[in-house]
Amino acid sequence: MRHFIDFSDLTPAEWTELYRRFDDILRRPADYRECARGRVLGALFYEPSTRTSFSFQVAMQRLGGSVFAMSEPGSTSVSKGESLKDTIIMCSGYADVIALRHPCEGAALAASLYARVPVINAGDGGHMHPTQTLADLATITRLRGGLDGLRIGFCGDLKHGRTVHSLICALSRFPGVSFRLISPPALTIPDYLRAFLHARGQRYTEATELDTAMPQLDVLYMTRIQQERFPSREEYEEHRGVYVLTAAKMRTARPDLLVMHPLPRVDEIHPEVDEDPRAVYFEQARLGMYVRMALLLGLLSEPAGALPDLAYRGGARLCANPRCVTAREAYLPPLEKEGRCAYCDARLRISPPSDTPAKCHQNDAGTQIFSC
Amino acid sequence: MRHFIDFSDLTPAEWTELYRRFDDILRRPADYRECARGRVLGALFYEPSTRTSFSFQVAMQRLGGSVFAMSEPGSTSVSKGESLKDTIIMCSGYADVIALRHPCEGAALAASLYARVPVINAGDGGHMHPTQTLADLATITRLRGGLDGLRIGFCGDLKHGRTVHSLICALSRFPGVSFRLISPPALTIPDYLRAFLHARGQRYTEATELDTAMPQLDVLYMTRIQQERFPSREEYEEHRGVYVLTAAKMRTARPDLLVMHPLPRVDEIHPEVDEDPRAVYFEQARLGMYVRMALLLGLLSEPAGALPDLAYRGGARLCANPRCVTAREAYLPPLEKEGRCAYCDARLRISPPSDTPAKCHQNDAGTQIFSC
Amino acid sequence: MRHFIDFSDLTPAEWTELYRRFDDILRRPADYRECARGRVLGALFYEPSTRTSFSFQVAMQRLGGSVFAMSEPGSTSVSKGESLKDTIIMCSGYADVIALRHPCEGAALAASLYARVPVINAGDGGHMHPTQTLADLATITRLRGGLDGLRIGFCGDLKHGRTVHSLICALSRFPGVSFRLISPPALTIPDYLRAFLHARGQRYTEATELDTAMPQLDVLYMTRIQQERFPSREEYEEHRGVYVLTAAKMRTARPDLLVMHPLPRVDEIHPEVDEDPRAVYFEQARLGMYVRMALLLGLLSEPAGALPDLAYRGGARLCANPRCVTAREAYLPPLEKEGRCAYCDARLRISPPSDTPAKCHQNDAGTQIFSC
Repeated sequence: MRHFIDFSDLTPAEWTELYRRFDDILRRPADYRECARGRVLGALFYEPSTRTSFSFQVAMQRLGGSVFAMSEPGSTSVSKGESLKDTIIMCSGYADVIALRHPCEGAALAASLYARVPVINAGDGGHMHPTQTLADLATITRLRGGLDGLRIGFCGDLKHGRTVHSLICALSRFPGVSFRLISPPALTIPDYLRAFLHARGQRYTEATELDTAMPQLDVLYMTRIQQERFPSREEYEEHRGVYVLTAAKMRTARPDLLVMHPLPRVDEIHPEVDEDPRAVYFEQARLGMYVRMALLLGLLSEPAGALPDLAYRGGARLCANPRCVTAREAYLPPLEKEGRCAYCDARLRISPPSDTPAKCHQNDAGTQIFSC
Repeated sequence: MRHFIDFSDLTPAEWTELYRRFDDILRRPADYRECARGRVLGALFYEPSTRTSFSFQVAMQRLGGSVFAMSEPGSTSVSKGESLKDTIIMCSGYADVIALRHPCEGAALAASLYARVPVINAGDGGHMHPTQTLADLATITRLRGGLDGLRIGFCGDLKHGRTVHSLICALSRFPGVSFRLISPPALTIPDYLRAFLHARGQRYTEATELDTAMPQLDVLYMTRIQQERFPSREEYEEHRGVYVLTAAKMRTARPDLLVMHPLPRVDEIHPEVDEDPRAVYFEQARLGMYVRMALLLGLLSEPAGALPDLAYRGGARLCANPRCVTAREAYLPPLEKEGRCAYCDARLRISPPSDTPAKCHQNDAGTQIFSC
Repeated sequence: MRHFIDFSDLTPAEWTELYRRFDDILRRPADYRECARGRVLGALFYEPSTRTSFSFQVAMQRLGGSVFAMSEPGSTSVSKGESLKDTIIMCSGYADVIALRHPCEGAALAASLYARVPVINAGDGGHMHPTQTLADLATITRLRGGLDGLRIGFCGDLKHGRTVHSLICALSRFPGVSFRLISPPALTIPDYLRAFLHARGQRYTEATELDTAMPQLDVLYMTRIQQERFPSREEYEEHRGVYVLTAAKMRTARPDLLVMHPLPRVDEIHPEVDEDPRAVYFEQARLGMYVRMALLLGLLSEPAGALPDLAYRGGARLCANPRCVTAREAYLPPLEKEGRCAYCDARLRISPPSDTPAKCHQNDAGTQIFSC
């Protein structure tokens, strides 16, 4: 039995095998219609995400399996104070595989410690969203023919947005890939990611405008750019137009460019671009369902058995990241990897965490926030 | 590929074929249990409607297909500001057929412009609810033997209530049908419908009380009559009893009368009437599921292909109806048919719409309202 | 056709048959994977209960059937004022079997009066939760080999908690069972239950601490103990530790003890106990799904037909229990059994009920409360 917590859980050979299965499902979907007959997916969404939840649900259904879905922790045992551990063990008794979306960073790894069936990370706070990465890689591979030598531009808010960070990390495993990072100065990639790229000797450049980068790109990966991320409203108004993709900007691009976006978009891609055959973001969403079918099928085919040994060693140091799942679920053992928290990847410090544990609240807009 | 936006989308021959299929499913349900195996319905309900949503879900399940359902736009990408167009294109990638319920008038036609799979109108604001019309026609046809020469009374609030308007329009296509329209003076049918009936030379009478009409009716179609629709509380109290169906009133009716109601009822039909074999409103709801099975099967059997040509021409005039979907979704092209907005059927005026676009809010009671 | 409203609806032979089917499903689950193909479960949850709802949903899915689920009455016809009767008749037209969870006591019996398909009581207020009782009995029988001569301790809040009351009543049907009732003085079993035990000559003892009882027990059934149930905060702080199960307390117990809990737990069982092989509460939840499969299969196999005759006679006396379903649904006929309300088991008094009907509100925590 295996889990899928992070894209790096896959060896290159496993990724190749996953892609081959994805490709085969697309060519012969009818042959897969009964593959998961009698199997059940537990879709545990501790925060709403219609798109991802639908993608998993339909993926399981198109394999002939069925689904039970939690989409509102407010109306569940969770709101009665049940621990993640207990919920996961209970659902392990009902489901054959679990897809977990959770506002806490590291929640999927935490769940995998207790689950008796495979756990898929469907997004753990701002930390990882590895099935989006699978969708992105599968889309580029299918529509371009491969990932080697790819010249990809990321445009928008590169500071936040786990989607971009995960894809950059994943692509750096493939030979000859180069990055063009296009963002306002206040929203460049985080330092840890820049350090990672340097350490690997990865080719990348940073820029503040889209126009000059455009003609060289094989892929343009657009992201949402939210007003509240800017230092001031003036700065937002000044910059926003620079990062909005229009038909005019598309004129300078290569004829085989792929324009991608994790969706939902707000206004960073003008609707007129939708008619351009190079706009593949809707196809990217559709292919995401098929890559999730391939992933589910792979995990359901693993022989049942003991949990794999954890790759991480226990440690005495507690994580100080208030958004880490260990801040909310007190029973979790401290786990380290290379000086970092194995759950959330935050660097572990010597000083102990503050006495007041982080608490997760539901704010008015329905998204979950943390306070200390 | 076809959509089902309005009952008038069906030719008489198509209605006959749909009814024949419905009738066959009722007689041999087991033969249809695997017809939609491997197919997926996306039930996109932008406003809650348990009854209609359940009816569609079970219809798809009883054909062997599966369902993913959105029932709370508050917890979805929609609440992040995603356009109807984007949601529809995304769901087209997951589903084989879409049932859309939306608070905006014309939303189903708008969705059909972008969907890559058939769209069924499961209610678009106060505009249309054509699968309810199918349920009504199928119920009368099955329980009475046919629609020709039908004498049908509509009782209650005939001013609001798209159900009644749609059924009147649909029935006027059949020979010899006559209408008895029974309502308080303030709640008679709207002028456009009266004009429609005159233009067709349709036989109808209007009345303010139920008792005298009762003995002549083949069908009595009851509707909810809400206090807030009346000019004053006094007027409500004065009238309400007149439009409540009781066992006593049933005594004057024909032995083969059919009492129908779109449900849910509140108190316009006394529970004692439920025991009367002429009360067929629960059977009407049950048959509604079977007619949706027939509709789904028909649309899923259409050959996939290009979208049909729109029957409407583009126009320069914008619709001024604040509840029209074009008021909320700015990218929609203006479309006209015979001087009316093709989306919502509002008469197009020369004057441009106001500058302030209509916005859709969720009120406390969970229903969506519009303000300008 | 049959309903399952209370565990006492089953004869001893029927329980034996149900257990045999449950045992067979566990041994050969694949043989049952198509048993309910084409059948539909309506899961009508008028108050949220993820655990029970999931258990029913997956049970139906693992039999090859499908499910439609209502989990939020706030967004349904129910919130438009529809009666339970109308909702049940409508759902009877869609479903082959209904599982009903409702905040009113007696709601399941009320539903069974109008349903045209079998109704399963999935919890009716504080009254009954008979499928939890099935799960408990099946767990003990499977893990211990039988129920005869069982020495079972119930620990925690024994005053509230229908789970405990139902299990005590059910176990008293088996020979040689003895009870050890461990609770703070303010939270002992209710008088009616003590009277019931006396009347049957049932062996039981009451105690205020867990430690001395521990070594004699075959089963320890833990329950949640909520601070707000105590007369004062001081009393809560004084008592709570006594009723928390720890690894230390487990040391004095028999090697074949079974520790059970209806879940979700809060902190009445320390997580360290989870590692003990005698902790079977998660297995109990898992087996609950299998016993629901056996129940569904049994009810779906009954020949369709007329409703069984009611075992209760109509009466003139109205029930005065403000939490009884008759207080909310005015059309229900008064029904008596042995001087009690047949719906909620409240003793019927001579005095008429108060004029102000009970109303059901949704409180902030999402649970429903009643006020007069």
